[in-house]
Amino acid sequence: MIIVLKPKCTHDQLQKFSSDLEERFPVKVNAWFGTQSTVLGLIGDTSAVDIDYVAAQDIVESVKRVQEPYKKANRKFHPDNTVITLPGGQKIGDGGITLIAGPCSVESEAQICEVAGRVKQAGAQVLRGGAFKPRTSPYAFQGLKAEGLELLREARKKTGLPIVTEIMSADHLPLFKDVDIIQVGARNMQNFELLKELGKTDKPILLKRGLSSTIEELLMSAEYIMAGGNEKVILCERGIRTYETFTRNTLDISAVPILKKLSHLPVIVDPSHASGISWLVEPLAMAAVAAGADGLIIEVHNDPARALSDGAQSLTPDQFDQVAKRVFQIGKAFGRKVD
Amino acid sequence: MIIVLKPKCTHDQLQKFSSDLEERFPVKVNAWFGTQSTVLGLIGDTSAVDIDYVAAQDIVESVKRVQEPYKKANRKFHPDNTVITLPGGQKIGDGGITLIAGPCSVESEAQICEVAGRVKQAGAQVLRGGAFKPRTSPYAFQGLKAEGLELLREARKKTGLPIVTEIMSADHLPLFKDVDIIQVGARNMQNFELLKELGKTDKPILLKRGLSSTIEELLMSAEYIMAGGNEKVILCERGIRTYETFTRNTLDISAVPILKKLSHLPVIVDPSHASGISWLVEPLAMAAVAAGADGLIIEVHNDPARALSDGAQSLTPDQFDQVAKRVFQIGKAFGRKVD
Amino acid sequence: MIIVLKPKCTHDQLQKFSSDLEERFPVKVNAWFGTQSTVLGLIGDTSAVDIDYVAAQDIVESVKRVQEPYKKANRKFHPDNTVITLPGGQKIGDGGITLIAGPCSVESEAQICEVAGRVKQAGAQVLRGGAFKPRTSPYAFQGLKAEGLELLREARKKTGLPIVTEIMSADHLPLFKDVDIIQVGARNMQNFELLKELGKTDKPILLKRGLSSTIEELLMSAEYIMAGGNEKVILCERGIRTYETFTRNTLDISAVPILKKLSHLPVIVDPSHASGISWLVEPLAMAAVAAGADGLIIEVHNDPARALSDGAQSLTPDQFDQVAKRVFQIGKAFGRKVD
Amino acid sequence: MIIVLKPKCTHDQLQKFSSDLEERFPVKVNAWFGTQSTVLGLIGDTSAVDIDYVAAQDIVESVKRVQEPYKKANRKFHPDNTVITLPGGQKIGDGGITLIAGPCSVESEAQICEVAGRVKQAGAQVLRGGAFKPRTSPYAFQGLKAEGLELLREARKKTGLPIVTEIMSADHLPLFKDVDIIQVGARNMQNFELLKELGKTDKPILLKRGLSSTIEELLMSAEYIMAGGNEKVILCERGIRTYETFTRNTLDISAVPILKKLSHLPVIVDPSHASGISWLVEPLAMAAVAAGADGLIIEVHNDPARALSDGAQSLTPDQFDQVAKRVFQIGKAFGRKVD
Repeated sequence: MIIVLKPKCTHDQLQKFSSDLEERFPVKVNAWFGTQSTVLGLIGDTSAVDIDYVAAQDIVESVKRVQEPYKKANRKFHPDNTVITLPGGQKIGDGGITLIAGPCSVESEAQICEVAGRVKQAGAQVLRGGAFKPRTSPYAFQGLKAEGLELLREARKKTGLPIVTEIMSADHLPLFKDVDIIQVGARNMQNFELLKELGKTDKPILLKRGLSSTIEELLMSAEYIMAGGNEKVILCERGIRTYETFTRNTLDISAVPILKKLSHLPVIVDPSHASGISWLVEPLAMAAVAAGADGLIIEVHNDPARALSDGAQSLTPDQFDQVAKRVFQIGKAFGRKVD
Repeated sequence: MIIVLKPKCTHDQLQKFSSDLEERFPVKVNAWFGTQSTVLGLIGDTSAVDIDYVAAQDIVESVKRVQEPYKKANRKFHPDNTVITLPGGQKIGDGGITLIAGPCSVESEAQICEVAGRVKQAGAQVLRGGAFKPRTSPYAFQGLKAEGLELLREARKKTGLPIVTEIMSADHLPLFKDVDIIQVGARNMQNFELLKELGKTDKPILLKRGLSSTIEELLMSAEYIMAGGNEKVILCERGIRTYETFTRNTLDISAVPILKKLSHLPVIVDPSHASGISWLVEPLAMAAVAAGADGLIIEVHNDPARALSDGAQSLTPDQFDQVAKRVFQIGKAFGRKVD
Repeated sequence: MIIVLKPKCTHDQLQKFSSDLEERFPVKVNAWFGTQSTVLGLIGDTSAVDIDYVAAQDIVESVKRVQEPYKKANRKFHPDNTVITLPGGQKIGDGGITLIAGPCSVESEAQICEVAGRVKQAGAQVLRGGAFKPRTSPYAFQGLKAEGLELLREARKKTGLPIVTEIMSADHLPLFKDVDIIQVGARNMQNFELLKELGKTDKPILLKRGLSSTIEELLMSAEYIMAGGNEKVILCERGIRTYETFTRNTLDISAVPILKKLSHLPVIVDPSHASGISWLVEPLAMAAVAAGADGLIIEVHNDPARALSDGAQSLTPDQFDQVAKRVFQIGKAFGRKVD
Repeated sequence: MIIVLKPKCTHDQLQKFSSDLEERFPVKVNAWFGTQSTVLGLIGDTSAVDIDYVAAQDIVESVKRVQEPYKKANRKFHPDNTVITLPGGQKIGDGGITLIAGPCSVESEAQICEVAGRVKQAGAQVLRGGAFKPRTSPYAFQGLKAEGLELLREARKKTGLPIVTEIMSADHLPLFKDVDIIQVGARNMQNFELLKELGKTDKPILLKRGLSSTIEELLMSAEYIMAGGNEKVILCERGIRTYETFTRNTLDISAVPILKKLSHLPVIVDPSHASGISWLVEPLAMAAVAAGADGLIIEVHNDPARALSDGAQSLTPDQFDQVAKRVFQIGKAFGRKVD
């Protein structure tokens, strides 16, 4: 951490501030005296240093982190890729491409089982389906809740596909004990109390990037879960909010190679939510594979026009067949482990 | 709601779609036939209509809401201002200017009591202070939690100021039963499970706008709380995330008159979080009053440079004296009820 | 165009407004009377209708375009891809992948000729190089100007590669008469006077998307050039400005398939400016090809650390060899015309 | 300027780099050796240092400016406010509030003269009116051009109000020699060739902030004009582009006090373009005065519903009377020089 002091800072103030920093945080302070300003360099574990605290000092002109503020999620301290193994033996982050597919919301046994069967056949390795749905309007369909989870288990039994579904409150954790991957939605990425509770479980967590979260904030939220003891975090880029209105969100494709470089955690992409438009799912899925994503999460509905949520961005099973086929074909061209 | 159909839509499809809409939602459908396209107009309570459902239909070109999707928060159905009365008789939204002030985090009895005394003297009517702190880093100070709430009660006893503090999980509600106003932070604005629980309480809720939430989404989150039965919601503009990096966030000053026009709920502004810089608090507070805000929430710390969080944006009690004085003086010039 | 009128609108006002619209614009107005509001549908060439004019009417609640406001750039009226043929026979938009490469700024004959030779060898079909440089600071290097154009011609003579270079003012057009493709930079995308002048030339124009321009605005700027008579426009996605600070801009990868769908013009991607970081160029180039881009424009410098501008995002010729090789290899997997 | 070197940097590399920096730029380099990294501090006129050049060096981890990159616009080197005096003796930046008002576009002699008379009566000191109009669509009204300038002069003759109007190309400068203030529109804020030409004139320049320009970039564009020799620059905040769609742009009210602190140039606010909605003009004008703006530029049209451009955001003369009255009344409460 580099701290630039204001020109008016006296030697006494500098001494006092340096001692204070060394007392408060596990760091050592070095000073460099220029002709116009003095610069302090902090050495040690600066991830514990509160940058707000430093910036608030009257004698401080500006502060700059050199070291990343996350440790457990940092590739520097964990050079190898984290590979997450699911109960059925499926692996995420091992160089393959994991396809996660299913409807936005679980609506009925017939629906979820039909979609599950179709996406499995197309090569999906994990089934997604929402039981608890975060909806902007209190008057919109809120999901089948516990019944939805039951139907997901039913679909898993029939197809063997592990299931991923979103949690909206730590209170619901007991209901999720039989879920294979727990998803944290974009709107809850900084619901820190939820992250802390998930850190105490041993379930893989699919952590979606917040609508206006930076890449560093996503990694800090992963760090919350990991600091609690659960290192099985899957990062998910799902589009960010920008001024462009043609798409629901703007897929930040650069986030994929950046996250892969900064962190050892697997990175997947959600082209359905990123665009909100079904005909964009295929080109964005291709781009995600090309950028190095470890997997894709795609909405598939047996009857999108009847879907109780997010129909406009859902693929039909036939469309998904086509996307999956192309994903694996292109994955091969990129030297990815796909059969 | 206006629905533009694709040119290829047949009469049969149109008939089927219209009947379907009338069955699913409490609306009546009217069709208007142009030479190039057909337009449907939905009449009735369209706030119940799922716009995603409509957009997903294969024959739909585009959809546009005419009516706002919120009802209880809508000024159209509730023309008079909502006035919220606190236990001590203080009113928010009655044409006065409510000053809410205090430290970002409660740190000690001495600190909170000293600040409370000072801000009361300066004219603040409510004391703020964080006990549960949402921090980006799991390694940063997370607040004194239950002990912090206890200290706030202590400060209230000494000064008579009602207290407002942030809740981060519905689980903590029992701890908040003695709090006067419960705050929902920006990162939890779309934590819908929390909003639902708060809708069941009878406490005033200070609802902060999310970092990248639209004005309509803020009103929809208020609607969540109100739909649950609790109509005592105070809206808070606290800056949105933009590309500008000089300030921590960008205060959306337009949101104040817009919220006042669209809704009957009180609107306050947080110039401290909006800017993140203490010398901007005064001009932004002035602008907020000028734009019609019902109140301000301002961070004040007896020793900002020692603050355990957000020191860079906190005022000293002396600086707050000055801001408060100017707020009341200017409020008078704007014809506001201040003495 | 769909116009929703305010409930208070009288029949007389409606009649007067309809006649007025039909007089001003080449449209026919149809009215649809609902129980709560009246909707007007405009039929005809609504691209000529000024949406601001309509919105300003006191009786108008809201307006919505159904038809796109651009015509010449619109795929609806020109279903086939536009293919641009350069003097050397190179084609852009014919299903191949056009690699455009070269330094940010032309610095010397040795530099531009060395880079030109290397990128040609690697498979680039067009040489880029800035002679007039738009720099944020008046104190930064502004380009070699006319001398730079002369050096580009020199490099073209030696390698046979057609050249593309940026124009910053219509005044400079005489200097550009021997340039093969004229580039309009992001900061000039809405320099309408420049666009109009370029519309009178017969040179291919490489039009970069503005830093915060929407996809529709980019197409409207293309329309300016085309309306002037020059239909040889190449669209370029080069990253948009968002809140994310890790990259210089955020590559809007979705813009590629969207532009290809809405328009018949070729679309290229600039991964160098989009990211500002050399190690991101390869993954973003891959993603662009995967998303369907017709080409790439990439910064290459023989000595990036000595570059007079944009060194941080430039590839070395060796790095470009590798990227070009992978682009062609992956292009083949996507069924693109590459040899 | 602080440069953090990569840990792998050798002593020889450091020596070579330091010498190189001292040769290229008017700076002196000091090194500070930490246990994990080496930091360089550059002393001297770092506004001349190309930050891209530094960042491109292989041994550089990151760079941070300490000094602002603008000099002539910087308050540090010019502590007193710049006051601009117009031909009629009107002053901008002297502690008063300058009202600039008039139609978006000049449409006819009757229109501009009527509006000019009315806004003068209401207290406006400068007349605005567009003759050359930057329009997103090539098919929209582009302004009366030279004839519009003639009509503005006519209105000036009748009312004595100095005139401000937008220039879109340096080619048009001869037509502007009789204009009192030349406006640079948001879309041309980084049209550097135009800025350079304006730097050679002695006219006051009203420089609007670009749609997605940072505060620093606005100051750098002012610097372009000032570096050319023309120090009469008036900065204008007119709203920035964000994700919020209720308003056309988002007024960045914080920019007012920030620009006043960083620079000595006058700062005005355009509440009409910032919001795009006429009923927001008054509250935003109030907020601008409260935040310390030196003036306001407001669109007024004698018949907004008939306006050829931007009618939706124009005030009627009666509405402007009311806004002007309140601006002066509130200005007085803020201790501003208004009579």
